[in-house]
Amino acid sequence: MGTRGRRRAGSPDARRAILGAARAAFARDGYNASLRGIARAAGVDPALVHHYFPERSQLFVEAVYDGPDGPAMDPAVLDEVRHLPASRQGIALVRLFVTQWDRMGADRFAAVVRAALANEGVVARIRDLVVGALVTPLVERVAPDRVRLRSQLIAGHLVGLGMTRWIARLDAVSAAEPDELAAAVGPVIQHYLTGDLGEPSGRSASPLGAPE
Amino acid sequence: MGTRGRRRAGSPDARRAILGAARAAFARDGYNASLRGIARAAGVDPALVHHYFPERSQLFVEAVYDGPDGPAMDPAVLDEVRHLPASRQGIALVRLFVTQWDRMGADRFAAVVRAALANEGVVARIRDLVVGALVTPLVERVAPDRVRLRSQLIAGHLVGLGMTRWIARLDAVSAAEPDELAAAVGPVIQHYLTGDLGEPSGRSASPLGAPE
Repeated sequence: MGTRGRRRAGSPDARRAILGAARAAFARDGYNASLRGIARAAGVDPALVHHYFPERSQLFVEAVYDGPDGPAMDPAVLDEVRHLPASRQGIALVRLFVTQWDRMGADRFAAVVRAALANEGVVARIRDLVVGALVTPLVERVAPDRVRLRSQLIAGHLVGLGMTRWIARLDAVSAAEPDELAAAVGPVIQHYLTGDLGEPSGRSASPLGAPE
Repeated sequence: MGTRGRRRAGSPDARRAILGAARAAFARDGYNASLRGIARAAGVDPALVHHYFPERSQLFVEAVYDGPDGPAMDPAVLDEVRHLPASRQGIALVRLFVTQWDRMGADRFAAVVRAALANEGVVARIRDLVVGALVTPLVERVAPDRVRLRSQLIAGHLVGLGMTRWIARLDAVSAAEPDELAAAVGPVIQHYLTGDLGEPSGRSASPLGAPE
């Protein structure tokens, strides 16, 4: 990237340069990376960073969560899951989640989760993206009832799986092939998608897989 | 707490005073709270903090995870789960986890998870406590096979559920009664405890609850 002149608003590369610099800075310095340093690395005026990204959380989400080659979980990627019969979506969703983030990298997953924990604004944006844009539309096509609870249980389970594999790095989950995890975890996601969630009153559902 | 004289090593209250001060400081300032400030608040010499807790992560875990009135998840508390028939342990474990941390408070759960994400030493200690001391002993009594994978999937799922309820505060999961969550999530934990996890090769298990 040239440093001879600053990029200006409207320069086709300015926004992209800011995102690239932000991605590197967030990876190196965490969520509170210097916005001034990002502007300098991108060769733009600091005001331009603020122009494109009025809030730090927007810049973070677009740079880190959406990532270098498109969103980590582009809604379009879910098409392959959406077009499956409902009964096979659980396993397909787990395989997709694991292979996508394996490719994106443990560091990026950790950065997103850390930022979400450190900052309420990031929590809200990640929540909207993951639950609102990705999981809920999938669930509401096939769920027999209680779409919100199902969506949130699925999102929570996938985040927990990711923390186990990419952050706490527990050995058996970290070493498992995506197909192995899909086989073990997929039926659980399937249960949350279309299974009997039991009664709110506490009347319990039968253990999965065990006929009553 | 008096401030007229410093407590000395061997004083029966010194250790307890340090833990109390640390708990308040970690809650207020996060994982990197000042150890000097903790010593001052406890009325002890800073060297005494180091004497009892050579590493910051030990002090953190004992003050925040183990908590003001005993450990968040004392292994003894799990006795009520352990003595149930295997087929009912999943629901009981979820109910116990949710009621315990509801009582402990969302802030404490968030503090533990944040510290674990910020610091490798805390990750390791929490991992040892949660998986090693709590989950694995339960699983190995009833699991037909693959104890480590089962233990880690259970721990990951409970952490993910906690993040959904106490950190991201997704509405349906946050509003659910412990019994409702136990009914919805218990069968999943049951599956991880004693169900068919499928083949590592990718031959998939049947969807839970759906007869083949």
